Amino acid sequence: MRLASCVQAGAAFAAVIEGERAVALAGVDELGPATLPAAGGSVRGEAFALGDVQLRPVIPSPRKVICVGLNFRPHVSETARELPSYPVLFTKFALSLCGPYAAIALPRESSQVDWEGEVAVVIGKPGRRIPRADALEHVAGYTLANDVSMRDYQRKSPQWLQGKCWEATTPLGPWLVTADEVPDPSALVLRTTLNGETVQEASLSTLIFDIPTLISTISEAVTLEPGDVILTGTPGGVGMARTPPRYLAPGDVVGVEAEGLGRLENVFV
Amino acid sequence: MRLASCVQAGAAFAAVIEGERAVALAGVDELGPATLPAAGGSVRGEAFALGDVQLRPVIPSPRKVICVGLNFRPHVSETARELPSYPVLFTKFALSLCGPYAAIALPRESSQVDWEGEVAVVIGKPGRRIPRADALEHVAGYTLANDVSMRDYQRKSPQWLQGKCWEATTPLGPWLVTADEVPDPSALVLRTTLNGETVQEASLSTLIFDIPTLISTISEAVTLEPGDVILTGTPGGVGMARTPPRYLAPGDVVGVEAEGLGRLENVFV
Repeated sequence: MRLASCVQAGAAFAAVIEGERAVALAGVDELGPATLPAAGGSVRGEAFALGDVQLRPVIPSPRKVICVGLNFRPHVSETARELPSYPVLFTKFALSLCGPYAAIALPRESSQVDWEGEVAVVIGKPGRRIPRADALEHVAGYTLANDVSMRDYQRKSPQWLQGKCWEATTPLGPWLVTADEVPDPSALVLRTTLNGETVQEASLSTLIFDIPTLISTISEAVTLEPGDVILTGTPGGVGMARTPPRYLAPGDVVGVEAEGLGRLENVFV
Repeated sequence: MRLASCVQAGAAFAAVIEGERAVALAGVDELGPATLPAAGGSVRGEAFALGDVQLRPVIPSPRKVICVGLNFRPHVSETARELPSYPVLFTKFALSLCGPYAAIALPRESSQVDWEGEVAVVIGKPGRRIPRADALEHVAGYTLANDVSMRDYQRKSPQWLQGKCWEATTPLGPWLVTADEVPDPSALVLRTTLNGETVQEASLSTLIFDIPTLISTISEAVTLEPGDVILTGTPGGVGMARTPPRYLAPGDVVGVEAEGLGRLENVFV
């Protein structure tokens, strides 16, 4: 099942995506802490043509957005860092997110805006100290993200927050593909395109810390709650690692896709 | 005015603290994004003896908890780091918070639990790219926090999240002292005690990045919203900097206080 958070004529609603239709889920205004994992079982309401609705971040108001840095070996190499022995965890805010097809405003303060295509995991069932073997039972589903990063701000301090949390710059979507349709997330192949050219491509089987390990590790410290989002890390091929570096400019279009999860695509303005 | 988030006989309510009484604010279940800054103007309801109510984290469910590291020179020195040129920003989660008098369970996974007394700022008026000169207009009030840190976990990666976000280990309170009662927050003198002995003491006039600068800097990247909490940094005197290091053990009592803001105190168990 594909679930989305939508807005149409100013009204927000969650929907199930069936072909080219968005069928509203009665009484569910968005996917998130209060509505996952049960949202998909809601009574069907009005149906809209997919082209007539605007897709919001698939989880518009998560309580946590936890990101994983340096989780593919080629990306660790291109950033000239050491291989991590523990997942490199940092956060974004709910306000950092934007819709999967939103135009993203390049901040006037940063001249080094970079792409990072990623697969995102959305939690459905709460848990603390989740054993690795049980971790996938806590997943509501999977989606895509672009962990857009302001490199100049990221480097302003040893902690990356201000380069990662910039308002309305992290697209999340286009929809949540429920976990029953992704029996083996490590088989997903992630691809990022810049103006149509493939710039990142990797199988999630090559993650340094796989999804069950991430869920188990994070939940050691804190309860994972429904609607929490984990961005699992980006492959090699980011703009800052090019010679010369290639940062995003007005008119650039970045897409992130994986078979089965769909594709998000944003123009930078 | 002193405002608190309380629970009594299983019912949550916000209250104004008047002497030794907690006077419920009608229709306000807690201080936070939906109720600040107007909460204090609510109609008064039932009054309880302060000793009969339990104090929750003063903001139980903030959308953001932003912390500042290395913001007093003696603390920078004791951690053998360089003086920062930009605030060192990291985050906790709402679930990381606990009540100002709660017993704090030492996690079985960490053997290096340390104290960090801090003054916390709570946002009342939203803003983005807030000029430094206007910053204090966005403050609802001030409170205290202990940025309890699991040093062994903090050092597991270059990003500190997992050592800082541990569930129910960061007391926040005891109450919000509204900004009108703290005309000059830089005049606050912060003190941390361990089993009655003063271990940290500093004037906020010696912050490297003062409160207006922090608000201005953070809001450059992302909108600050009502109920957002900023932990402004800890003075010198943490346990890891002692020879030998002094980590918290069962029975230890840590207090954090500042004249005008009151005192929080937690036993570690």
